[in-house]
Amino acid sequence: MQSAQAIHASSGDADFLYATGMHVPDPAFWFRKGHRSYLVASALELGRARRQASVTHVLDEVAWTRKVERAMGRPPRREEVYARILLAKKVRALDVPASFPLGTADVLRAAGVEVTPRSAPFFPQRMIKRADEIAAVRAAQAATERALEAALVILREARSRGGGLRRGGERVTSETLRSAIELSLAREGLVAQHTIVASGDQCVDPHDCGSGPIRPNSPIIIDIFPRDTRTGYHADMTRTVVRGTASREVREIYDLVHAGQRYAFDRIRGGCDAQAIHRGIRGLFTDAGWPTGPRDGRNQGFFHGTGHGIGLDVHEPPTFGDRPSTLPAGAIVTVEPGLYYTGIGGVRLEDMVLVTPDGCEQVTAAPKILEI
Amino acid sequence: MQSAQAIHASSGDADFLYATGMHVPDPAFWFRKGHRSYLVASALELGRARRQASVTHVLDEVAWTRKVERAMGRPPRREEVYARILLAKKVRALDVPASFPLGTADVLRAAGVEVTPRSAPFFPQRMIKRADEIAAVRAAQAATERALEAALVILREARSRGGGLRRGGERVTSETLRSAIELSLAREGLVAQHTIVASGDQCVDPHDCGSGPIRPNSPIIIDIFPRDTRTGYHADMTRTVVRGTASREVREIYDLVHAGQRYAFDRIRGGCDAQAIHRGIRGLFTDAGWPTGPRDGRNQGFFHGTGHGIGLDVHEPPTFGDRPSTLPAGAIVTVEPGLYYTGIGGVRLEDMVLVTPDGCEQVTAAPKILEI
Repeated sequence: MQSAQAIHASSGDADFLYATGMHVPDPAFWFRKGHRSYLVASALELGRARRQASVTHVLDEVAWTRKVERAMGRPPRREEVYARILLAKKVRALDVPASFPLGTADVLRAAGVEVTPRSAPFFPQRMIKRADEIAAVRAAQAATERALEAALVILREARSRGGGLRRGGERVTSETLRSAIELSLAREGLVAQHTIVASGDQCVDPHDCGSGPIRPNSPIIIDIFPRDTRTGYHADMTRTVVRGTASREVREIYDLVHAGQRYAFDRIRGGCDAQAIHRGIRGLFTDAGWPTGPRDGRNQGFFHGTGHGIGLDVHEPPTFGDRPSTLPAGAIVTVEPGLYYTGIGGVRLEDMVLVTPDGCEQVTAAPKILEI
Repeated sequence: MQSAQAIHASSGDADFLYATGMHVPDPAFWFRKGHRSYLVASALELGRARRQASVTHVLDEVAWTRKVERAMGRPPRREEVYARILLAKKVRALDVPASFPLGTADVLRAAGVEVTPRSAPFFPQRMIKRADEIAAVRAAQAATERALEAALVILREARSRGGGLRRGGERVTSETLRSAIELSLAREGLVAQHTIVASGDQCVDPHDCGSGPIRPNSPIIIDIFPRDTRTGYHADMTRTVVRGTASREVREIYDLVHAGQRYAFDRIRGGCDAQAIHRGIRGLFTDAGWPTGPRDGRNQGFFHGTGHGIGLDVHEPPTFGDRPSTLPAGAIVTVEPGLYYTGIGGVRLEDMVLVTPDGCEQVTAAPKILEI
């Protein structure tokens, strides 16, 4: 018999959102046993839960709390109420995500419920995108490409002056470009945080958001990964551009990173060995004279994964890096090799592809042009 | 001796952000023992962690993983690496937040580390705002008031036509107003999600975001709770307005909710009994003929808390509702009574106040005007 499953989280947790289809700002308790699924709803959420939640049963937390209080002779903790509900529904063993809150698990265990954390993916079917999920990612990506264009327009109109770039009398900075991107997204109902617009040596830390003046003739990494607030689905795209003329080294690593992407596109198909593709790209870079490893006390080269699954989470299974993994047909994954060296800067190119039984389909349409 | 503390989370977790001062998109492991604090940083975050994280020691996850792999003779799981690091630092007992991931806790426990979940607040000092934190909330609130004004301008310019409101030939909807609010916030670097613009009976579900046409002469609840992406701090404000003329009932509950707020403002001071204030407001409403409880299978009246602490989380301790709690001086809390009845609609008014030793200071400046 299949174990029951439970999640205790807000809809910021993608598994919760996937299970309930409902946005809740504070953690709520969901569980499933066989074909019955339950959401324990607070007074605040009860009415909406009954109309919106994709569960077979909505339970009234206030009523259950009163009942448990009568039985215990004192006001129960929330987790104690959940434990009583589980026992009333004859749930004795639960599978939960590895991220399940320890505080809740300890109370359930003390009440005699066996709680087993399962490593991701908790819902393996989340990897395999339905048509509506693919459409949601494509819609988010289309808006993301328009947001990128909003930044590129500013760069194209900017002129080199005094070592920096100026447009309409204003200095062009990471902040200028980030703001243009995030405003464009907001106009279409997407939310982006920590959008990366990094230039020069800032690029060498792939999660540095970037700040300050943008210089001409230097690589700028633009990595946009918004969430569509209507659907909850994400897009993720990176482009590297130079306003002006790229150095020989930047041109060389740009072409190599692009070749790394093509290496992956040629090999991705349902069931492919993701780790082998990742290592293949790193080998390609090393063979071309651009190795990976610490240098001057800093990681340099290609020191992150090749990609990741994307959907309700911006990073979700399958993994696509230096750990054993296969890419199932139906997954949407990013392909985002990069090369980073202090003194040169960094280059990253990132597209999303839909894995198919015998190859992959591009989700991303934005062109790749280094010098603008 | 004080136990060591640990957090395993991304910077989406406010405790992690408070402890490390660093934005990381994926979960990372932080712990503290005495005056030493540690962040285990992946290859991707190592350089940035060394420059940005407010910890005494940054540990290289890749180097530790290699070391543990040599000892175990197989690639370790991430959590196994954390366990080895803890043992190497002679940490045998850990306090963790109740939200600490069960998957990690079970691995640490199996390695012999005692792990104890602590109920919120994990860092009680987070409740007591420093001057820079108060300034961050005030800045977020100022931007929020400008965003509210962007919506009110649209409502004021709208004209009643065919049972709806139109402006410049377009129907005014919840979506129109939400978009104006969120764009105004985005322009100032704040991110809002699920901003509530609910009208008519939608108001009766306090977490219904609202959708569709806005009607004249009907209450509209506007609840804005953005996060300032530069600081991580939140604001939270609700106003209820009617475009046109409010019904007698709406006017009556509006005045009563406003009186409920004043009841709280008169009683909030460092050490005050939050539950007593909450019950006092509900009593005030009941005495005036507007009771709380289920009616027609739906919660009606004043069925949520009076408020909540706010800071790096939009909802954080202290609690301010029907559970025992005191408000410490230095906390910023919302005061947001509401009354909701099907057939009438809802009214909620929400301000933030800073609790002081002998009273409270308003953080919110926006006026309260029902009919606009």
